[in-house]
Parts: sequence; C-alpha cells; structure tokens
Amino acid sequence: MEKFFDQVDKLGPDFKTRLSDAIQLESVVTKVEEKKEMAESLKKQLSEFGANAQLYDPKDGLPPIVYAHYNTDQHDTKKTILVYGHYDVQPAGDGWSPDIPPFQLTEGERKDKKPCYFGRGSTDDKSPVLAWLNMLQAHKAARVAVPVNIRFLFEGMEESGSKGLPNFIKNTDEGKALFANVDAACISDNYWLGAGKPCLTYGLRGIAYFKATVTARQNPLHSGIYGGTVYEPLTDLITLLSKLVDNKGNIKVPGMLDDVPPVTEEEKKGYECIDFQMSDLEAAIGNKSYIYDDRIETLQHRWRWPSLSIHGIFGADSSAESTTAIAPEVTAKFSIRTVPNMKTDKIKNQVTKYLTEEFKKLNSKSQLTIDMTENGEYWVTDSKHKNFEAGKQATQTIWGVRPDLTREGGSIPVALDIQEGLGKDSQGNQKSLMLLPIGTALDGAHGPDENIPIKNYTKGTKLLGAYLHHFANAN
Amino acid sequence: MEKFFDQVDKLGPDFKTRLSDAIQLESVVTKVEEKKEMAESLKKQLSEFGANAQLYDPKDGLPPIVYAHYNTDQHDTKKTILVYGHYDVQPAGDGWSPDIPPFQLTEGERKDKKPCYFGRGSTDDKSPVLAWLNMLQAHKAARVAVPVNIRFLFEGMEESGSKGLPNFIKNTDEGKALFANVDAACISDNYWLGAGKPCLTYGLRGIAYFKATVTARQNPLHSGIYGGTVYEPLTDLITLLSKLVDNKGNIKVPGMLDDVPPVTEEEKKGYECIDFQMSDLEAAIGNKSYIYDDRIETLQHRWRWPSLSIHGIFGADSSAESTTAIAPEVTAKFSIRTVPNMKTDKIKNQVTKYLTEEFKKLNSKSQLTIDMTENGEYWVTDSKHKNFEAGKQATQTIWGVRPDLTREGGSIPVALDIQEGLGKDSQGNQKSLMLLPIGTALDGAHGPDENIPIKNYTKGTKLLGAYLHHFANAN
Repeated sequence: MEKFFDQVDKLGPDFKTRLSDAIQLESVVTKVEEKKEMAESLKKQLSEFGANAQLYDPKDGLPPIVYAHYNTDQHDTKKTILVYGHYDVQPAGDGWSPDIPPFQLTEGERKDKKPCYFGRGSTDDKSPVLAWLNMLQAHKAARVAVPVNIRFLFEGMEESGSKGLPNFIKNTDEGKALFANVDAACISDNYWLGAGKPCLTYGLRGIAYFKATVTARQNPLHSGIYGGTVYEPLTDLITLLSKLVDNKGNIKVPGMLDDVPPVTEEEKKGYECIDFQMSDLEAAIGNKSYIYDDRIETLQHRWRWPSLSIHGIFGADSSAESTTAIAPEVTAKFSIRTVPNMKTDKIKNQVTKYLTEEFKKLNSKSQLTIDMTENGEYWVTDSKHKNFEAGKQATQTIWGVRPDLTREGGSIPVALDIQEGLGKDSQGNQKSLMLLPIGTALDGAHGPDENIPIKNYTKGTKLLGAYLHHFANAN
Repeated sequence: MEKFFDQVDKLGPDFKTRLSDAIQLESVVTKVEEKKEMAESLKKQLSEFGANAQLYDPKDGLPPIVYAHYNTDQHDTKKTILVYGHYDVQPAGDGWSPDIPPFQLTEGERKDKKPCYFGRGSTDDKSPVLAWLNMLQAHKAARVAVPVNIRFLFEGMEESGSKGLPNFIKNTDEGKALFANVDAACISDNYWLGAGKPCLTYGLRGIAYFKATVTARQNPLHSGIYGGTVYEPLTDLITLLSKLVDNKGNIKVPGMLDDVPPVTEEEKKGYECIDFQMSDLEAAIGNKSYIYDDRIETLQHRWRWPSLSIHGIFGADSSAESTTAIAPEVTAKFSIRTVPNMKTDKIKNQVTKYLTEEFKKLNSKSQLTIDMTENGEYWVTDSKHKNFEAGKQATQTIWGVRPDLTREGGSIPVALDIQEGLGKDSQGNQKSLMLLPIGTALDGAHGPDENIPIKNYTKGTKLLGAYLHHFANAN
C-alpha cells in the first residue's frame, strides 16, 4: 500500500483539479444538463482508469445512473466490492460568505482552523465519489494492482429521494449484473460524529411521515362574526398535536416502544468509548437547548430510541401579518424516526388508531384524516462483519486510531435498497454493507460554506484504498 | 318625503351610472392614484349637490380624506348629522365567476335570486357612500330641502386600519370643525343579519390580538440527527396553544369572564324577536359545523360573549411538502374578541400571566415572549336614543317592518373614534352613533362576486333620506 499512499501524496494537485471541475458543474436538482455533463465526466474518468463504465438512462427526465465494472476479468481470483455515491448536490441556498462562491472551489480555512476546500458538494458527496477515482488513479500511477474487483454505482437523484435507483437495482439487467457476485458494499456519504475522530456507521433510523388534516368546511370565516359559534379546525388540530409528544421527547402514542429492546450492558459499553461530548452538540446547535445533559443518553436518543417531531402546519395563515380568519381546513406534518424493531406499517396503525380515538373524545363536528405519506425502515447491520473489520484496519492504518462505531439519527433509504440488492451469501447470511464516511460533522453539508478538510479528502482517498486492500486480505 | 321618494325611483339609471363609475376606479390599498381619483370624484359630486367639500391630505402617502359641510348656513335652525363611509375597497382576490369582472358593474341575479349589481366595493362600502350622494341628488331634483345639516366624512384607508383618520378627527382644525356642533352620527358600513330583514346596529366586539413566540435557537435542525435530543419550540408552542381554548369556544385563560355581566331577562327577550335562524348560519358557513344548535345561544356568543381564535403559526414550514426540519423559533397568532365590560389592557395582563405560568410548568430551555400587537375596545351604545328611533321609523317607512336591533361580532375601530369625536351633549350625555346598514349578509363583502341587491341600493337611498327626515322631526 505504501507505493499507493506515496502517489496519493504526489497527486494532490490533480485531486484538487478533479474536485474543482466537479464543483463547477452545478449538478442541482433543477439542472438536467449539468447533471448529464457530470455523469459523462465520471464515466470518462472511470474509463480512463480502466473501468468499463456506462450510463443508464432511467427515463422520465431522470439523470443518468453511472455504473462501472472494474477488474471484470479477475472474477475468480479477487473479491468484489460494490461502492455507491451520488453526484447530485443541494441547491446553493442562502447564507454563503461573500468570498466563497458556492459553485467554485475555494481553498481556505474553516471555523475550526482546518485548511479546507469550500464549495457546494465538496463534502456531500463529490469528494467521496472523486476519492474513489483518485484511488484508481493513484494505483495506476503507482503501478499497484487494485486488489479487488469494484462495481461502481453513482446516481444523480440522491437529494431527491433516489428516484429511479431502486428500479435500476431490482428490475434491470444492468443493475442485476452490477450486483451479481458482489461480496460486500461500501457507501461513503455520511460524516464523522464530530470533527476529530473517524467512524464507521452500522445503523440508521427509519422514518414514518404523517399528515393529519382537520376539516370543518370549505371557506375561511371571519373570526369576528363567527368566532365562538363555529368549530375551528386549528383548535382541534392543536389539541391532537399536543397529545403526540412532550417537550422531553417522550412519544405519547401508546405502544410506540413495544418493539424497542432495552439497552444491554454490552451496548452501554459501546457508547462509552465513542468520541462525543456535550460540547460537540452545543457547537452544532448553537447553545445548550438540549434535553439530556448526559452524552450517552444523548447518543442513545439519537440512534436507538424513536423520536417524534412536528414540522409545521399548512392551511392556516402562516404570514407574520395580524390576520383574523378562521381556517376551514388545516394539516399538520409530523414524523417519527424509527429504530429496531419498529415497523412503519405498525406505527401507522398505532398513530392512526390513537389520533382517531383522541379526536372522537373531542366530540367535534369537523373531520379528521390521517395519512402516512412517506416511510422507510431503519437499517442496522453487524458491525463485526469482516467488511467492518477491513474498515477498522484501514482507519487504523490511515488515521492511527480505531474508529468509533456509530449509528445515525437520520434516514438514508438507499442503504436499504443496496442491502436488498446485495442479498445473501452462499451460507444464507446477509451480505454486508458498511458506511465509511470521510467528511466531518462540521463540513456544513446542505448548508452555506460547505467544505471538506483537505486532509480528509487526501486521507479519505488513502482510506478507501486501504479498505480495499484490507478487505482483499481478509479471510 | 314622497316627492323625494319619487325622484329616487326616477333617478335609478343615474344611480346605476354613479355606482358603475365608482366600481371602475380600483381604489384598493396599493393603488394610490385610483384612490386619489375616487376622492376627487366624491368631492366633485358633493360640490355639485351644494356641499362645501374638501380633501384633506394626511401625508405619509395616505390617500385624501374627503370631508364636506352641507347646509352650513342653517346651523341655528336645523339639527346636524355626521355621516361616515369609506371609498377604499378590498383587492379583488380569487374565485370570481368568469362572467363577473371585479372592477366593472355587472347587473345580474345572485344565488338567492335577488337582482343585484356585482362588483368589488358594490356593498363595501361604495353603494352606502353613493347612497348619501343619491339622497342629495334626489332632494335637489325633487326641490325638497334636506332637513338637517350634514357633515360628510369619507376615508380611503378603512380596509387598512383607518390609518390617519383618528389623527384627523382629534388633532386637526378641519376635523374638529367637522365634528363641532354635531347632534348625532350615522355609519352605513355593515350588513343585515340575514338577507331578509333590516337592522340597526348598536354594538361591536373589540379585539385583542396576540403573538406568542417560542425560541430555542437560531437555525433549523435536521430532525433525523437531533430529533429526541433537543427542545423543539413547536412542541412547546402547541402545548401552550392547547391551553387557550377548547373546541366549544370556552376560553381557558382564568378571569376572562370576570367583567362580563350575566344575561338579563330583558336582554333575553331582545334576542327572541331577532330574525335569525340556524339555517341562516348554515347558509353562511356552508354546513352545520356550528357549536350551538340554539339560535339565541348562537347570537349571544356572536355578540355578547368573548371568543378566542387561533389564526396560524409562522416560523415552521407551512408548505405541503414533506419537510423534516425542527424550526428554531415559532410564533402563534391568536385573537380574543372582547365584549362589555372587558378591557384589552387587562386581557393582555391575564393572557401574559397565564401563558407565562403554563410555560414555566413545561420546564423548557426555550424562551417565550408574548405581545399584544393590536387592540381595540368593544363598542355598545343606547339603542333607545332618538338617533335610533329615527332609524327605526325610517326602516318602518321604507321597508314596512321594525328593524332588528343587532350587535356585531366583528370590530370596527373607527366607530369608537367617531364616538369619541362626537363627545357629549350639553346635558353631559354621550352623543349617539348609529350603524345603519343597507346591504345584506349575503352580499359577499371581501369575497368573490361581491354584490348589492338593486332594491337595497335604491331603498337604501330612501332609507338614509328618511332617517334624516325622521331625525329632523324628533323632539
């Protein structure tokens, strides 16, 4: 691996140019042409480094899926890893510093003093995607063989719910061929828990998204004329919402914790060694407006307990003006983050039953409807699998520490799709998917001044290569 | 009066043209030039009929106040009535029928089969304003002397809180002169309780408008990462809002009814003779989503009990999209309609104290702020005053019935300003203000397809004239 590492260090300027070119392509959701150009560029570069790269057109105006087979002729002698990334980015949004143009690579220093590359997509997810290319380039330059077969899968719709990707994986010849005979998979598209210590991620919460609508009539009414004499949907909706969760995060819907196992002693120990302090949370949210003062309780409530957030209400006037209407129909949006072994189908029934019963108690003349409009299951995998062991060894090799084993509070539905695409091995065990982030919690993904520490980009390239070597050498 | 009535019948086409011209002038809040033109037109017409009409410029970009003295040389021999109206109108808004252009008079038939004139401002408040002019014209044509001195006051900011008018009344020489030696006042700017029976209005509810804000931090957070570990302002706000009012309209803020006197037997009898059926309410709101099945309870809760309505929330995402942020700061808007003898200052203290206490119980790390952003007191006057007796006689003369004596649930702050401007008579009694509507509850004021029945426009012109004659003849 040393020769490979040396080349990574030498190729720094190339890697910077590669990232700079990629950031300049505004591959945001609305820009179909830029997305196509980005996909073409990835295909071209993969081909240059010896991969058999293709574009798949998912139709319906969706951008191409880039897929590639690398070392395809060495199937019998080498293991096969599938890697996933996405080349689409969030829109720039507001709040960028005046000297940091969102769609241009700017080298600078970020708040925690780390030298970094600024630019939209720098950490989410262009650097990780390009780090895989860098890794190929460095191997080529070092004349070191990449020790595994690789299947590349880069999509352009991740920021819009990965539309089209599940169909590609499950139902197309190209997708099935890409997942055939894969031994394990690796996604580099999340972040360290803080900015100091690397991690491997083995779990995500799921999500059940609800809309609850209370309807009294068709038209708004004047509160002066009708106030006090008619049912007001917003009053009923607020009463219902007040019964969902308390401000300490306790979900009041009965049965919500029925399927969540208690914390075991072993699990507790796992939290103790995680590099996470309450000051990290304070830095991230801007003050101490958190519920638990204890770092382990905080981690547990982020990763392994469900949460319920009310996101907003529509139908009532949401301007800052002093308007006086009685809204005829109002809808609340709320979501429940799910954890093992909750199932969103059951959650849907529990929430619907509970709210329906509570609404009946109100004896209102309005009508209530409840929909679970979106859902995705939690994902947790075995963090002792040899796939993760390779990740641990690689982290030790590159960063000199054992990585934290983390879960995430958020939901990445594509993880489940990829795990399903992998299927089971010949012994009937689920093939392993690992999340191997190279960026940090302070990179500002989705926000203004998005960046990646230069060190993380370079060492990240080494890390992905080292992971492949360690996986190749594992028994 | 018969000669005057005959001329009103003959001048129908003139009155229609007058209204048509006025509707064509889009005197909405944003159109300063159109408002000026409308004011000029009123001044010109008042002058033609012999009034000494002027425009007052309130400065600050506000439209002119039209004021006029009529019969100014007959001060010692005739009583003096002040009349108020407004020439500004609501914006057209959505929902107009394709064959009814908002800013053009369209003659047609409305839902209850009454022949009517459609157009924005037809009932609110251009027809009433023009009915005063029609009345002058018909007297002139009939060569009948108008039996009282009249002071005209027409403003162009009523739909925007009558900005500038209180200052004109209280602090300007022109305003003081206009109100000097006035015996009583009449506003024609509200509506019958239904569409069948005329009314005189002697009371309005007041309003105390509140904004309550819960703040946790500066930036939105991702509910996946932070849900379950941080305080969510919307959860706290919803809990607070759920403690304000129940869905039967009972206000939960302690002390709210302390100053509201119980219903007397005499008052009860007053409600019994009011022409109002539950079917009227059903027709107005579109279905039976009302709280009280009893018509008298309904009227009482519209007129003489306070109500509390929650109008909306801002700060949280109010789109219909399935967004997942935790809002950092959210504000609720709610208002309390006040009745005798509630005072908004006291209401402010009661609401603030109650919500502050309830918020403390939540033991939240967020902050609560409460503001009463707008307020106006209730208005109730003596419906047996000779001003009202003149209104009753006029209604009997024109419509052949005794009018209902109504109050309104809504608030018209200018009524209080005018009453204050009137001041007291030589015996120290408050001079009387009467609301004398000519339009009906089904005219669609502020809504699409606004209209006024042609009969109401014509008979309304007679009614205003008859009122002046009866007042002139009263002892």
